[in-house]
Amino acid sequence: MSTEAPQDAKQDPKETGRVEAFSDGVFAVAITLLALDLKVPRAAELQAAHTTLEAALLAQWPVYLAYCISFATVLIMWSNHHKIFLHVRRVNPAFLLLNGLLLMLVTVVPFSTSLEAEHILQPGAVTATAVYSYVFLMIGAAFNALWMYAVQNGRLLGAGHNPHAVAAITRQYKYGPRYYVLALLLAFVNAKASLFACLALALFFAIPEATPPSSRAAQ
Amino acid sequence: MSTEAPQDAKQDPKETGRVEAFSDGVFAVAITLLALDLKVPRAAELQAAHTTLEAALLAQWPVYLAYCISFATVLIMWSNHHKIFLHVRRVNPAFLLLNGLLLMLVTVVPFSTSLEAEHILQPGAVTATAVYSYVFLMIGAAFNALWMYAVQNGRLLGAGHNPHAVAAITRQYKYGPRYYVLALLLAFVNAKASLFACLALALFFAIPEATPPSSRAAQ
Amino acid sequence: MSTEAPQDAKQDPKETGRVEAFSDGVFAVAITLLALDLKVPRAAELQAAHTTLEAALLAQWPVYLAYCISFATVLIMWSNHHKIFLHVRRVNPAFLLLNGLLLMLVTVVPFSTSLEAEHILQPGAVTATAVYSYVFLMIGAAFNALWMYAVQNGRLLGAGHNPHAVAAITRQYKYGPRYYVLALLLAFVNAKASLFACLALALFFAIPEATPPSSRAAQ
Amino acid sequence: MSTEAPQDAKQDPKETGRVEAFSDGVFAVAITLLALDLKVPRAAELQAAHTTLEAALLAQWPVYLAYCISFATVLIMWSNHHKIFLHVRRVNPAFLLLNGLLLMLVTVVPFSTSLEAEHILQPGAVTATAVYSYVFLMIGAAFNALWMYAVQNGRLLGAGHNPHAVAAITRQYKYGPRYYVLALLLAFVNAKASLFACLALALFFAIPEATPPSSRAAQ
Repeated sequence: MSTEAPQDAKQDPKETGRVEAFSDGVFAVAITLLALDLKVPRAAELQAAHTTLEAALLAQWPVYLAYCISFATVLIMWSNHHKIFLHVRRVNPAFLLLNGLLLMLVTVVPFSTSLEAEHILQPGAVTATAVYSYVFLMIGAAFNALWMYAVQNGRLLGAGHNPHAVAAITRQYKYGPRYYVLALLLAFVNAKASLFACLALALFFAIPEATPPSSRAAQ
Repeated sequence: MSTEAPQDAKQDPKETGRVEAFSDGVFAVAITLLALDLKVPRAAELQAAHTTLEAALLAQWPVYLAYCISFATVLIMWSNHHKIFLHVRRVNPAFLLLNGLLLMLVTVVPFSTSLEAEHILQPGAVTATAVYSYVFLMIGAAFNALWMYAVQNGRLLGAGHNPHAVAAITRQYKYGPRYYVLALLLAFVNAKASLFACLALALFFAIPEATPPSSRAAQ
Repeated sequence: MSTEAPQDAKQDPKETGRVEAFSDGVFAVAITLLALDLKVPRAAELQAAHTTLEAALLAQWPVYLAYCISFATVLIMWSNHHKIFLHVRRVNPAFLLLNGLLLMLVTVVPFSTSLEAEHILQPGAVTATAVYSYVFLMIGAAFNALWMYAVQNGRLLGAGHNPHAVAAITRQYKYGPRYYVLALLLAFVNAKASLFACLALALFFAIPEATPPSSRAAQ
Repeated sequence: MSTEAPQDAKQDPKETGRVEAFSDGVFAVAITLLALDLKVPRAAELQAAHTTLEAALLAQWPVYLAYCISFATVLIMWSNHHKIFLHVRRVNPAFLLLNGLLLMLVTVVPFSTSLEAEHILQPGAVTATAVYSYVFLMIGAAFNALWMYAVQNGRLLGAGHNPHAVAAITRQYKYGPRYYVLALLLAFVNAKASLFACLALALFFAIPEATPPSSRAAQ
């Protein structure tokens, strides 16, 4: 119907589906690769160092902590990505580009997590923690950019979108990056405090979403 | 229709689909990463140690055993996850959180498997086997929590759900963790016996599901 | 309608979809992990060995050859898996188990490929090649078992399935494992010849599928 | 209806869906594996070399640059793959084979990226950069082959396909490989210039797709 045929083709509902499927794939691989940082202490090394396996496993606590924080954070990000696509009904090349930037930052999380786990107890703790929280900050900013681009003048929303729901998400997304700026600044004062701030943020973003008692009635 | 718009949006059937797709992705990546623990003996090392490749491959039997047990167990878990979503028709934030916890534990399986394979013949066998069976125990507990949360008062079930089918799954899930408690306790008595208990449990959970002769007639 | 409620739930068409999605995920991860065996020669090692990067890359030819054979073979297997699900309309626990066994063997391919690439020019060539072709043989056998189980008495086929199409696949699958038995036996005579037999089989299974000139007319 | 039953079955619309899902999986895993090349400097090595973590991270700039170029390029390729399937409505064995070849080349990108990052500042820079741009050139050629095969005489297009949209894609795809030939030739003159040409091409292919101001009106 339009002379801009490829543009036309893109408004196919199938399009959103495939962007979601690809994004889900990237999120799923990235979140599972986090576990590659859980290293198995080698038996020969334990014998050489006269340590027990328990001691060696306990000494890895920064790895477990960083793993848990990153897993929870990426999971919340996936859930946010999800929410965006409950409202976005069409995609265009600029949206795909912003989504790609977001995914690129998500795939960096296993690296920044591994960096943090290796250096949090070492002289490079400040640098590692700054990088760690900076990656989360950038992801928050990319989410904001993706969402604002989609909702601006209702650009990519469905015809019957709920403006209250859209405004609620806009409000929620606006604050995320600000908290991560604080976590980033805190890294230069105290690396461990900054890491615990990232943990607190993951819990904070997860908990308020707990189902309200009225949710069953509301269906 | 509701003033709780984002909640409303979440009851979209599409929502369940994307949780399943993401979970399937995590299960698929985790189960395939198990194979990364199958290490290739290096030709140079074989020459240095005056061993043949056959001998080196056979010496890795704990790796193959742990691989098989873990693969079978994760496969059964995926199949259970599956069954949950045959009945669950809606998701809410608390359910997503519980599902995330379950997925996190699943992504830890390649680590606990590799730990077990490295240490089952070493001084750290008890610790490694305890961690190995504990991860399975935690996954069983997370499945129970996810399922009980979804079915409690029919919270996330479809309108026309079959109460007999739901009760059958509830019964089946209740016992899984108890068996893994036994496997965990056994690790402190005899690590190898505990590993074989995990193997027996994987077979036990797989076999009873074998199709009954009447299944074709029942369709 | 039936008192065997969970069984009943399983006949949901959604079920087949999720088995396919999970299997596709495993195939996709396994086929991409093959590329992890393509190792980058380190600059420092090249300098120490007074070699050029070209020479080092060319010396890795067994890796590239094994990669290509395995990629093509897994791709053909995925395509076969595909074909099975064009006809299978329902799943049951035994079918899921057989499918799981098949997927387990597929995830072993990156290991057997890496083993073959490391040892084809070494004393362990016979062992490595025997393992390599044996894994393919087992996958072929698992495909046969999966297909025969599904079609026996039309157990899992749709009501209006095409018996000619089903018989054609049965015939095609029956021969695959026999050829790999030959490749396996050849490994004990001449490892390189056996590897080239695996290459020939991959090409042979790929080429006959090339679209016949009449295919457009047939639509 | 046809005596060529398996052929017939393949024209099922479900078929395209599963090819897309599998391809998406491969693209998602390959693009996420790129990040495995982001290596964490080990604390012990930093101490031994009397360097700071900042210095060690900054010294890795070729890794980041190669990562960004490859991520952007693979993302654009995924987006192109996408576009192909907006028009292709059926698959046949030859198309599956060409798609497989394309996916194989995509899975090689993490290797060529790692090779480039390791050698761009080393004596092997020309070889590494030639391989790097050659892989992109081959992917561009595979895209062309896939697309030309599908559209030739409308072989795999839907009945109501838009010839203008198809011709626009044909035109766009024709030029891609030519630019990568230039990047490849440039590698033999100046490796760094060739790498920056690959960056420029990624940006060039991404930017012209930016949404035109009229896109909203066009919906």
